[in-house]
Amino acid sequence: MKKNAKEAIVRAAISLFNSNGYSGTSVRDIANLARVNTATIAYYFNNKAGLLEYCFMHFFEQYIGKIEEAYLSIDRGAKECLKRIVSDLLHYQCENSQLASFVYREMSMDSQVVREIMSTYSLKEKYYLQKIFERGFEWQEFRPHSIPYLIIQLKGLLMMPFMNTQYMREVLYIFPNEPFFEQKYLKDLHAWIDKTLSFEGPMMKGAVIK
Amino acid sequence: MKKNAKEAIVRAAISLFNSNGYSGTSVRDIANLARVNTATIAYYFNNKAGLLEYCFMHFFEQYIGKIEEAYLSIDRGAKECLKRIVSDLLHYQCENSQLASFVYREMSMDSQVVREIMSTYSLKEKYYLQKIFERGFEWQEFRPHSIPYLIIQLKGLLMMPFMNTQYMREVLYIFPNEPFFEQKYLKDLHAWIDKTLSFEGPMMKGAVIK
Repeated sequence: MKKNAKEAIVRAAISLFNSNGYSGTSVRDIANLARVNTATIAYYFNNKAGLLEYCFMHFFEQYIGKIEEAYLSIDRGAKECLKRIVSDLLHYQCENSQLASFVYREMSMDSQVVREIMSTYSLKEKYYLQKIFERGFEWQEFRPHSIPYLIIQLKGLLMMPFMNTQYMREVLYIFPNEPFFEQKYLKDLHAWIDKTLSFEGPMMKGAVIK
Repeated sequence: MKKNAKEAIVRAAISLFNSNGYSGTSVRDIANLARVNTATIAYYFNNKAGLLEYCFMHFFEQYIGKIEEAYLSIDRGAKECLKRIVSDLLHYQCENSQLASFVYREMSMDSQVVREIMSTYSLKEKYYLQKIFERGFEWQEFRPHSIPYLIIQLKGLLMMPFMNTQYMREVLYIFPNEPFFEQKYLKDLHAWIDKTLSFEGPMMKGAVIK
């Protein structure tokens, strides 16, 4: 019963933060939607800021976990490793699309919790991506390029559908929480890795072997 | 003097909306920063929502203007036309990076003004991009592909640096309002057009002519 209350609070908070923004949501709104009283929220999360922090940690712990796990397969090639990361992260975002949407939006604001996330999780993510890109350059899988500029592109492609769910739905008629989207968009992300990031497939490899 | 007051209000609003979010900013905050009294804000913009609407319109009027102007050169090729649009939009965003940042963030929220923007400006943008992609397929400049999925990628790449200025600065040490960034990132955007969107350059064309 208690665990249910905690879960209900988190679910309500994600939904309200997502549609009305963090500042546009009160603890009372969350309590009403979760059907608990505000004291219960205070008990589990202290206050609204505590709830926000919980959502951030919850999101990024799993996010970095995916990267760390996929990184274990780096010896099978940088390209394959990056493709797996992209596929796992896309899947994770699709499964948690509301949470991803509002976390990404809040990350664009300058606050204490955002700075903490950046100095831990974002730096960790950068560390792994950097390692993978470097291995890819070294093993001549990837074209040499500025790593920060590759990270912008990769993250831009990965985050766009979740930072703009309204636009996706209303203008493009695409629904990022549907399996069809995930399958189709994954191909596009892999195409970016194959075409923009990597040397052209078999032909180029042949040239190198000669 | 009066024009200065209006400009000062808009500048203050953009800066505060950007750093504290729309909901996290009060009319009083804006009045203080702009060094006007709140009645002056009421006179020009009615209320905070009026000021937000003004910022949106101001941003998207110019944004669509850039696309419409570049579209006039469609007969010189879809690829060239798209490259010009990308270059003009990137430049526009770089010159108005604070405005772009907060407008893009607010666009992720579900509100009346956002819906109006989407049913006018976003649909117009989609119309032009669609036209350009269709011409590109027809003239065999671009690989056939789902247009909405191309729009996601293009807009993801274009918007990312402005939706995540904090991250860019704190994690990647890249400053989207500096000329160096614009030059360098434009090459990446053009590379996406050349490599992912288009058939591979001269070789492929040779093959088609045969």
